[in-house]
Amino acid sequence: MASWGKRLAGVRGVLLDISGVLFDGSEDGGVPIPGSVEAVARLKRSQLKVRFCTNESQKSRGDLVRLLRHHGFDISESEVTAPAPAASLILKERGLRPHLLVQDGVRSEFDQIDTSNPNCVVIADAGESFSYQNMNKAFRVLMELESPVLISLGKGRYYKETSGLMLDVGAYMKALEYACGIEAEVVGKPSPEYFRSALKEMGVEAHEQAIMIGDDIVGDVGGAQRCGMRALQVRTGKFRPSDERHPDVKADGYVENLAEAVDLLLQHADE
Amino acid sequence: MASWGKRLAGVRGVLLDISGVLFDGSEDGGVPIPGSVEAVARLKRSQLKVRFCTNESQKSRGDLVRLLRHHGFDISESEVTAPAPAASLILKERGLRPHLLVQDGVRSEFDQIDTSNPNCVVIADAGESFSYQNMNKAFRVLMELESPVLISLGKGRYYKETSGLMLDVGAYMKALEYACGIEAEVVGKPSPEYFRSALKEMGVEAHEQAIMIGDDIVGDVGGAQRCGMRALQVRTGKFRPSDERHPDVKADGYVENLAEAVDLLLQHADE
Repeated sequence: MASWGKRLAGVRGVLLDISGVLFDGSEDGGVPIPGSVEAVARLKRSQLKVRFCTNESQKSRGDLVRLLRHHGFDISESEVTAPAPAASLILKERGLRPHLLVQDGVRSEFDQIDTSNPNCVVIADAGESFSYQNMNKAFRVLMELESPVLISLGKGRYYKETSGLMLDVGAYMKALEYACGIEAEVVGKPSPEYFRSALKEMGVEAHEQAIMIGDDIVGDVGGAQRCGMRALQVRTGKFRPSDERHPDVKADGYVENLAEAVDLLLQHADE
Repeated sequence: MASWGKRLAGVRGVLLDISGVLFDGSEDGGVPIPGSVEAVARLKRSQLKVRFCTNESQKSRGDLVRLLRHHGFDISESEVTAPAPAASLILKERGLRPHLLVQDGVRSEFDQIDTSNPNCVVIADAGESFSYQNMNKAFRVLMELESPVLISLGKGRYYKETSGLMLDVGAYMKALEYACGIEAEVVGKPSPEYFRSALKEMGVEAHEQAIMIGDDIVGDVGGAQRCGMRALQVRTGKFRPSDERHPDVKADGYVENLAEAVDLLLQHADE
C-alpha cells in the first residue's frame, strides 16, 4: 500500500462517485457503505476540495441530495455534478426538443425544456421504464428524424444495488445505437467534457492536483485518467476482483473502501 | 429491369423470407402482401425448388405455418428453416441448459431441453417480454457464468408490423453483449451456417443455383451473398428507399414485391 500511497502527493481536489462509493442503492433508498459518512465528513474538514461527480440519472439532483443527507452525508446540491442538469443545459444551448425516456423521478430536471415535436431522444437510467413499448417509442422517434440525435446520460454497463447487479443505461444506449445505425452522445462519465466541468466547478487542475475515487474501473477510473487525473478504485459497489486485471485500465491504487482512500489521502496529499 | 433479369439464369432453388415478403405481421395475425399467396403457388407449380428461411422467433414453426396456411399460403412445416428448432438442436448437441428469454409462443420448441441450473442464455424476438426485469434476469444469469454463452435467434435491428417499425432481437442482443462484455452466437440469418442448412435441406448449391428473396438488405441480401448466393430485395416489409444506396450491400436486383420476383424468375431461370 505504502508503495503507491506516495502517488497521492500534491492532491488538492477530490472527485467522489456516489453510488457504490458513498452508498449502495436499492428500491427503498439504499444503505450507506460502512465508514463513508465519516469519510466524507473528514474530507470536508480537511484542506482538500471535494466535489461529487455522479452518473445517477434516475433521480433529480435535489432528490439525490435529500436521500444522502437522510443517510447522514454532508452534501449540498451545489456540490454535485449530475448528468440530467448537464444535459438540460446542452438541450437549451442547441435548441433540441427531446423525447424523454427517463424515470419520473428525474423529469423535473427537464421542466424548462420544450418537449413538443421532438427532434432528439434523451435516455437515462430508466430501470423498469425500459419496457419494450417505451424503447420502441424512442426507436420510432429516432427513425423518423433525418439526422437522429440520441443523448445518453452516462453509458454504464451495470451498477450494483443491494438486490444484485442492475443493467445500466449503457446497455439500452447500445440497443438504440444498433437498431438505428447511429452513435449516441454521452453526457456523464466517462465523457471528458463532463469530468472537466466538475473540475472547473471545483477550481482544480486535472494534472497534478485532482483525483477521482470510484467503483467503476472504466467509467470512473479510466475516464478520469484519460483526462489526466489520478484515480483510485474502491472494492465496494460494483467492484469485481477481475477489475484489478482489467486489460486496458489500471487504477493508481485500489482501496477497500472510501474510508481507506480518505485515510491515505489525508496522510499523503501534503507530501 | 431486363438488364439484370439475365442474372437469374440457372437458378434452381429459391429461398424465401417470410415476414415482409409473404405477409406483414401484426398482433392479430397480420395481412398477406398483395400477390404473394399466388406467387408462392406459381413457384411451387414450377420446376424450381422452394424453401422458406425465416428469422421468426416469436412463434413455434407449427404456429407460424398454421397462420400462413390460414392466409392461403401453400406451406408445410417441413419446408421451413426457423431459428428456434435450429437452436434447440445446437443446445442438445452441446449439452447446454438455457435460460430462455423468449415469448411463450415459441417455448414449445424447447420442450425437450433441460432448462434447470442454466449454463447459457437464449434470446429470441421477445417483444413485450423484453421488460427490464426479464432483461436483468438474463443479464444476471450471464454474469454468474464463468464463460458466459449467449445465443441469439437472429440479430435483426427491426422489422415492420402493420402498426409500424418494431425493435428486433438484435438490439437486445447488443444490450446484453455490451453489459456483459461478450459476443453472442447468432442462430438465424445472416449466419452462414443457417443459410447452408436451408440449402442442404433443399439439395441446392449456393453458387450458380440458389437465390434468396428478402426485405432485409443486410440480414437477407448481404447474408445470402456472403454465402455465394444471389439475392433480390423486395420493396415490401421493412424495405426503405435508402436500402438501394446501402454502403456495403448491393442486391442482384430490386423488385416491387414477391409477385414481380416470381415473374422474373419464371421468365429467366431457364435461360
